Amino acid sequence: MKTYKKLGERKIIEVIQSRLDIMPKMPIPFGDDVSAYDVGNGNLAVLKTDMLVDKTDVPPSMSLWQAARKAVVMNVSDFAAKGAKPLVILVSLGLPRKLTRKDIEEIGEGLNAGARGYNAYIIGGDTNEASDLLISLSLFGIAKKNLLMLRSGAKPGDLAAVTGFFGKTSAGLKILIDCLKAPQKIRKTLVESVLMPHARLKEGLALSRTRAITASIDSSDGLAWSLYEIAKASNVGFLINRLPTAKEVERFATINELDPLELTLYGGEEYELVLTVKPRLWKKAEKAVEKVGGKLLPIGKVTAEKLVLLEIDGERRVIEPRGWEHFKSVRI
Amino acid sequence: MKTYKKLGERKIIEVIQSRLDIMPKMPIPFGDDVSAYDVGNGNLAVLKTDMLVDKTDVPPSMSLWQAARKAVVMNVSDFAAKGAKPLVILVSLGLPRKLTRKDIEEIGEGLNAGARGYNAYIIGGDTNEASDLLISLSLFGIAKKNLLMLRSGAKPGDLAAVTGFFGKTSAGLKILIDCLKAPQKIRKTLVESVLMPHARLKEGLALSRTRAITASIDSSDGLAWSLYEIAKASNVGFLINRLPTAKEVERFATINELDPLELTLYGGEEYELVLTVKPRLWKKAEKAVEKVGGKLLPIGKVTAEKLVLLEIDGERRVIEPRGWEHFKSVRI
Repeated sequence: MKTYKKLGERKIIEVIQSRLDIMPKMPIPFGDDVSAYDVGNGNLAVLKTDMLVDKTDVPPSMSLWQAARKAVVMNVSDFAAKGAKPLVILVSLGLPRKLTRKDIEEIGEGLNAGARGYNAYIIGGDTNEASDLLISLSLFGIAKKNLLMLRSGAKPGDLAAVTGFFGKTSAGLKILIDCLKAPQKIRKTLVESVLMPHARLKEGLALSRTRAITASIDSSDGLAWSLYEIAKASNVGFLINRLPTAKEVERFATINELDPLELTLYGGEEYELVLTVKPRLWKKAEKAVEKVGGKLLPIGKVTAEKLVLLEIDGERRVIEPRGWEHFKSVRI
Repeated sequence: MKTYKKLGERKIIEVIQSRLDIMPKMPIPFGDDVSAYDVGNGNLAVLKTDMLVDKTDVPPSMSLWQAARKAVVMNVSDFAAKGAKPLVILVSLGLPRKLTRKDIEEIGEGLNAGARGYNAYIIGGDTNEASDLLISLSLFGIAKKNLLMLRSGAKPGDLAAVTGFFGKTSAGLKILIDCLKAPQKIRKTLVESVLMPHARLKEGLALSRTRAITASIDSSDGLAWSLYEIAKASNVGFLINRLPTAKEVERFATINELDPLELTLYGGEEYELVLTVKPRLWKKAEKAVEKVGGKLLPIGKVTAEKLVLLEIDGERRVIEPRGWEHFKSVRI
């Protein structure tokens, strides 16, 4: 019989779901970035829980303060992808016995910094002893039902876009875990992207108000995987012709003889938004993001053909359906 | 410097809280059984998160199905104590690698059984690899602000009451962990109380509508501790004159030469409600509970003197301020 290790995270979620009674009229289906409950008057209570586990989510050299802050950011990022504002956060901690009072203070301060960075408050929680350090957060917000950006609305002809350049976290993790080299300035940018991630909340909220977005997901499982998730939920494909590789990543790849395409497409723990946009509202979406200090980068388009393709110099190839999955990814 | 082990759960929560910005106008203060966010029109979004950790919350002989169900019950119990109905639940799982597909199915089924037993649905979640089995749940519900039962409203002269008899889980745990003996029928009741706990949701909801209740808490940390928590939050004391010891516990104590008082007052993982009731509305509260199939047992009264006292045969003694705390309780 297959064990957890062999099943992998996504299959396990499937197995659990198969055992659950489904709530009638679920406003957001299982498997989207957040869950929701219809509270009436066109409003949804938006809910999300996700757990940070030190041994899979905390790379070497990340402080406890940073880990606690990251636990908030990774949850806020899912709200950002849906265009929902998190209001309050509950914390459920699993703490190893060896932690000191100073460690716990650091965790409290990191959680607070994460929450306040997005104007949310931590309003309650619970603590338990555990073998690993675990930070399980629950976020709550209220959102207009008709403004929420799901994974499932992409249409052929829509433009594909992202809110930033990719590959920095995969490069950063290679520096932190595999001790690869990079010039000081580039190294700083790449390592920072891992240790101090940011959720695109302002961008997500601004975009949801434009009504230009037909599908949205955060890229925490990698760009390729995110495209496949939208493709699956929307029953479409993608033709990507502008790979949004960060310039630091190009440089890092050259120095270390790595494939920048690999770093861009198959990384993870990157908290950009991956979106599909109605072509006639592209300018509106672009302006809305710029107004809050962000950017919207076109990377290709949505296709009726259900393949996720990359076109470089007129040549097309299939982007592989793989991504960041903790249990199957190699981590020290 | 003190480590987690020495600090204990309650002190750790204090340390974390001291690092957090406090949300203005929090409808429910830190440290009550649930948290809340004011959504307007006299309604609160009620939120709760709590984590079940196998090594501290799952006694020997409890199945995975039972453990998953218990994770739901212990969270629902906190909603019950506030008179709030949980509507939806999110699950964040930490699963050891060795778990099989069948184990995971069992967890899914236990979660579903727990949720459906209280008319709630599981609508989302997340899974992670972890060293321990962890089931972290987040519950959401909507409650009328003016019906919510906090810990802080007890007044001298109010009657103290509970929704059931105590001591069964402490006796049951002694059977399961220390292999103490009991006649078959009693053994079954005591062990069942540990393996198949029930939350007093119907009772809590019925009581909240009577407006007879001035303070309420669930007894998961033990009866003595619950009384102290209300005493602290309400700035009062208690005089307890009828100890609600279960008859099976009396019998078990006699057989094993144990103190039934100890089993009744200082157990834990018992999901009764501990309440204070306006004397003139006692009958109304009693009837409301009976109407939903429960019972309201008077155990004493609230006093202005800030002591928690037990009166037996005219003699008074202080109930010790100790209770169930995982890190400090001895568990195999």
